[in-house]
Amino acid sequence: MFDGLISELIDALRCLPGVGPKSAQRMALHLLERDRERALRLAGAITAAAERVGRCRRCRALTEAEECRICASARRDPKLLCVVETPADLFAIEQSGSYQGRYFVLLGRLSPIDGMGPEEIGIDQLLRRLAGEPIEELILATNLTVEGEATAHFISEHATAMGISVSRIAHGVPLGGELEYVDGGTLSHAFASRRRMFS
Amino acid sequence: MFDGLISELIDALRCLPGVGPKSAQRMALHLLERDRERALRLAGAITAAAERVGRCRRCRALTEAEECRICASARRDPKLLCVVETPADLFAIEQSGSYQGRYFVLLGRLSPIDGMGPEEIGIDQLLRRLAGEPIEELILATNLTVEGEATAHFISEHATAMGISVSRIAHGVPLGGELEYVDGGTLSHAFASRRRMFS
Repeated sequence: MFDGLISELIDALRCLPGVGPKSAQRMALHLLERDRERALRLAGAITAAAERVGRCRRCRALTEAEECRICASARRDPKLLCVVETPADLFAIEQSGSYQGRYFVLLGRLSPIDGMGPEEIGIDQLLRRLAGEPIEELILATNLTVEGEATAHFISEHATAMGISVSRIAHGVPLGGELEYVDGGTLSHAFASRRRMFS
Repeated sequence: MFDGLISELIDALRCLPGVGPKSAQRMALHLLERDRERALRLAGAITAAAERVGRCRRCRALTEAEECRICASARRDPKLLCVVETPADLFAIEQSGSYQGRYFVLLGRLSPIDGMGPEEIGIDQLLRRLAGEPIEELILATNLTVEGEATAHFISEHATAMGISVSRIAHGVPLGGELEYVDGGTLSHAFASRRRMFS
């Protein structure tokens, strides 16, 4: 239907998450009908980021520098280390403003079926950090999925053996969540992890 | 929060329609975490399309060639010409398979406030086509907005003066639309445009 280059653009846009054929077409026509300069700027930004963004050598977060901003910052608590699965998880925690330590990004989770073993998610590198840095508490913030839980258990066993205190972020009913609409899995987790009041 | 190049990428992605800060961030991380080659392919497709896609010299549709496929096709009825506002409208009509003539794409609508006069939307070019080609019927498929209606009226006056039969696509209750849920404007249009049965 569309000419070659436009079809190719629509096709290429579908690699973006949440973009189906209809949105890809809308995006392509928008880029071509409106501001071509912005389209070229977008192409340049994708190229620059794809070619030059690498991983932080300490925490494996995405960065174009040797070390990411958080690892390089002297204002971060060196005694706390939080393990997350993805850079998006790291960003969500940073936005909440509730954590002042450093991070370690697995960029995945243990999943033997997908060929993700301990080395693929950098657990050897994490253990080297635990051995070489003055870390006192390791906070596991992997997701509450089968793979995320397995990953948390695997890391906690190794870290505990090294004498490091390991904790897991709390899972339960979210703020403002009405019990009526919370799923059964979350509710049973909330009951199993209940805490005594006025202790 | 994010490093320079990643922030720039997130910012650039927001030029896409329907992409807010959260989706832009998700898209940027997806492009960087997963397949960098696809990201580069996307950048290449945007650049190629933005630099080489122009307008068909006959109908103003987007194309990389001198003439778009529809104008170049000998199987299209040369006696019918349909006026649409955007290439997306043209695509929607083509997908319905209900029209075999050629098109003229305004790439806009009459809107003096936005500086869109008859020349900006190519009406002079349209009138030259009407004068030079064996067109018998001009079908106006601009949108049913104030500007779309004004554009349709403006074109119909000029085309009628040239002795060409002008029609407007029908507006009314859509297929499968239940009267209960159809908006008042559509309903009053459906009543005003009612047709005698068995005529």
